[in-house]
Amino acid sequence: MLDKTIMQEMERIVGEKNVLTRKVDLVTYSYDATADMPRQIPDVVVMPTSTEEVRRVVNLAREKGLAIYPRGAGTNLSGGTIPLKKGVVLSFQRMNRIMEVDPDNLTATVQPGVVIQDLNNAVLPFGLVYPPDPGTVATATMGGSVAENSGGLRGLKYGVTKHYVMGMEVVLANGDKVRFGGKTVKNVTAYDFANLFVGSEGTLGIITEITAKLIPAPKYRRSMMGLFKKLEDAGNTVTGIIKSQVIPATLEIMDRTTIETVENYTKVGLPTDVEALLLIEVDGMAEEVVEREAQAVAKVVKENSGDLKLATSDAERDQLWAARRAALPALAQLSPTVVLEDATVPRTRVTDMLVACQKIAEKYGLKIGTFGHAGDGNLHPTILADANNKEEMQRVHKAVDEIFATALSFGGTLSGEHGIGIAKMRYLGDEIGQSGLRLMRSVKEALDPHYILNPGKMVPEKEA
Amino acid sequence: MLDKTIMQEMERIVGEKNVLTRKVDLVTYSYDATADMPRQIPDVVVMPTSTEEVRRVVNLAREKGLAIYPRGAGTNLSGGTIPLKKGVVLSFQRMNRIMEVDPDNLTATVQPGVVIQDLNNAVLPFGLVYPPDPGTVATATMGGSVAENSGGLRGLKYGVTKHYVMGMEVVLANGDKVRFGGKTVKNVTAYDFANLFVGSEGTLGIITEITAKLIPAPKYRRSMMGLFKKLEDAGNTVTGIIKSQVIPATLEIMDRTTIETVENYTKVGLPTDVEALLLIEVDGMAEEVVEREAQAVAKVVKENSGDLKLATSDAERDQLWAARRAALPALAQLSPTVVLEDATVPRTRVTDMLVACQKIAEKYGLKIGTFGHAGDGNLHPTILADANNKEEMQRVHKAVDEIFATALSFGGTLSGEHGIGIAKMRYLGDEIGQSGLRLMRSVKEALDPHYILNPGKMVPEKEA
Repeated sequence: MLDKTIMQEMERIVGEKNVLTRKVDLVTYSYDATADMPRQIPDVVVMPTSTEEVRRVVNLAREKGLAIYPRGAGTNLSGGTIPLKKGVVLSFQRMNRIMEVDPDNLTATVQPGVVIQDLNNAVLPFGLVYPPDPGTVATATMGGSVAENSGGLRGLKYGVTKHYVMGMEVVLANGDKVRFGGKTVKNVTAYDFANLFVGSEGTLGIITEITAKLIPAPKYRRSMMGLFKKLEDAGNTVTGIIKSQVIPATLEIMDRTTIETVENYTKVGLPTDVEALLLIEVDGMAEEVVEREAQAVAKVVKENSGDLKLATSDAERDQLWAARRAALPALAQLSPTVVLEDATVPRTRVTDMLVACQKIAEKYGLKIGTFGHAGDGNLHPTILADANNKEEMQRVHKAVDEIFATALSFGGTLSGEHGIGIAKMRYLGDEIGQSGLRLMRSVKEALDPHYILNPGKMVPEKEA
Repeated sequence: MLDKTIMQEMERIVGEKNVLTRKVDLVTYSYDATADMPRQIPDVVVMPTSTEEVRRVVNLAREKGLAIYPRGAGTNLSGGTIPLKKGVVLSFQRMNRIMEVDPDNLTATVQPGVVIQDLNNAVLPFGLVYPPDPGTVATATMGGSVAENSGGLRGLKYGVTKHYVMGMEVVLANGDKVRFGGKTVKNVTAYDFANLFVGSEGTLGIITEITAKLIPAPKYRRSMMGLFKKLEDAGNTVTGIIKSQVIPATLEIMDRTTIETVENYTKVGLPTDVEALLLIEVDGMAEEVVEREAQAVAKVVKENSGDLKLATSDAERDQLWAARRAALPALAQLSPTVVLEDATVPRTRVTDMLVACQKIAEKYGLKIGTFGHAGDGNLHPTILADANNKEEMQRVHKAVDEIFATALSFGGTLSGEHGIGIAKMRYLGDEIGQSGLRLMRSVKEALDPHYILNPGKMVPEKEA
């Protein structure tokens, strides 16, 4: 419990209604969507309604030596929002206004608490879309997804969150408010700070406004499924599609464990004697081109001995995608603890990575289902376990170590879209080296010398 | 002239042949493509052949307190490569190897000295293209264009250099070699350092390797020209095209002064009684879609009272584009000194900006031709003057001040693609504020505390 005068000062800044101090309220903010993480109840939750309030809260927290944890919807998957050192959770639920949609400049300006889906609903009447598409669009906020540089299903063709951030307002640890970029397509004035804050997981500054890029929404789409007896054929299909110069909007893969689990869970009629399933959607502005791309993809699927199912109606499309959407919940219902990773490899190593995950599962006697975004090499090895079983969790941790080491040996990365947070901090040096860690710390300490912004995340703190 | 032992040490590191010390050789490195800039002959030019040599040169220079100026082809337009404080020019002409083209992962890995056009020639046989397209592709290097985050004609549809940098190797001022990103489409491990070094103008680190994203090369294109009696109609055409949900590959504008000058210079038959000319090219993978987009654009041109000329052959296309290519040389031959700016505004303010530039020209009794990338709001007000006429140059400087102030007042930016360098450093605070300048300095000093990397550029040095 914090000093009463600090609480009163917080209340003066944001209003009494916007300060939470009761344990029953605080407990919601002690965890996020990540499994197998420590929990910690914060001292206080503060819900600012303006940038100026954010600035004043930051100044107060800094003066009192309190940690600050910016928080959107808490849907992140690397422990990024857990208030490890107590202090202040800065929740953006009251800053959820879409400030402007500018269809002529193809931009939208939003407060950080805006839910991604709400932004898309607001721009759809203009025939526009904000493409970044993390699994949790219906709840995740713009601020959170920008801070995490969220990925999702459309990364291959449309890129990830950072490709859609044109400008930003940020409050720094020293209380400075800074603005970068804006509505211009091109801007090379100053360092590319907007991109530095994207994906910095709340450790460098607090995002208080975002100008996002929009694009014309694709008018046509075509979905299909390919079933493969051999994993290798699925992998060759993925690279074969790119070679045919078609870039699908989505290109998803599920391994045998995932397929079996989904079928048991949903009974949508998936065959369980296949090693891999690909779900592919092409889209675009011209019907005949989308159709032609669909035919080109179908040809590659068949050439690689795939059993093809092309959706001929929206209902059939929805049925195909129901299988993919069921992957995580289906796996999740098998066990109390679901460790969902996002090891990512170059596209050409997707098959190798799937095989490696299966071998690791056997080696450690674990059930691992792997699915994910084959088109951009971003896989989700999903380990099913029980956090109460300590011996099993030790095997889980060893398996995770080996999954990451394997991804790096394939020229991949620890995290394609979930971020480092708490979950992957101990592996960070394996990818970026000691020189990379030194660089991380020097930038962190230049912007936040006392580690008050989301401490304990992403950047291993300087050795005492 | 540097101490002889330092020269000998440089020669030991990179080989005698790769060290230039004769004044006749050094003078070439005393300037770059920017007009109205100071000149300075460096102490020495060093041409490393490997990252390890770069590291050793950096360590030596730092120990001896020498400034280091990384340099590609010197085509930049903001004074970014001028060795203001003497010291060492680090020229990348010997590190010009395309290390790998990986068509399956749609990547190419190159040394910084590779010329952009050479990369494109190497990937074309795979049906691929590296889209960033600064005017100087035939001479500019990958390292230089990444350091400057170069733009060009295709920014609207294809983005700029930063959108095509997937990974990077960098040597820091402390001698550390760091690597970030790579061949994976998604990567959220560590801060987005690759993007921080893009556009940092050699002030934060020395880029020694780049992994670039490639895309399938568009197979079809269609070009057209629109001539407008009223500037406003041209501006409305620009926004009207976007509203029709066509994103052209290029969408260029020329004002009356530029048109007249081009016609006098080239005699291609441009009418000189119009206020603006638009050059538009649509492209894509499907002929019928490109044709349909061309028709949609043509309709918007006509609706806005534009006189339309649609190229029906490659020869006609080349003729249309000859006019655009002639814009800068035509203006340049009118006067000894050509001050080429790149003030950039949101797309909807292009007409306002063109009008403002004309008014500024009248106010200061100057000839200003404005052309540029209307689709992305990136305009090139080009002031024709004579650097030997001091009184005139004072008016030029006042006009430039006013051009930038106007761009900022329209929600624009000081620089769309040329960078800050020396040329725009004094305006930087007008856009990013004192808090932004503090942030620039804190990041600069975290990475390069003694300002040895490209000093005097981009970041105003800390007050003594």
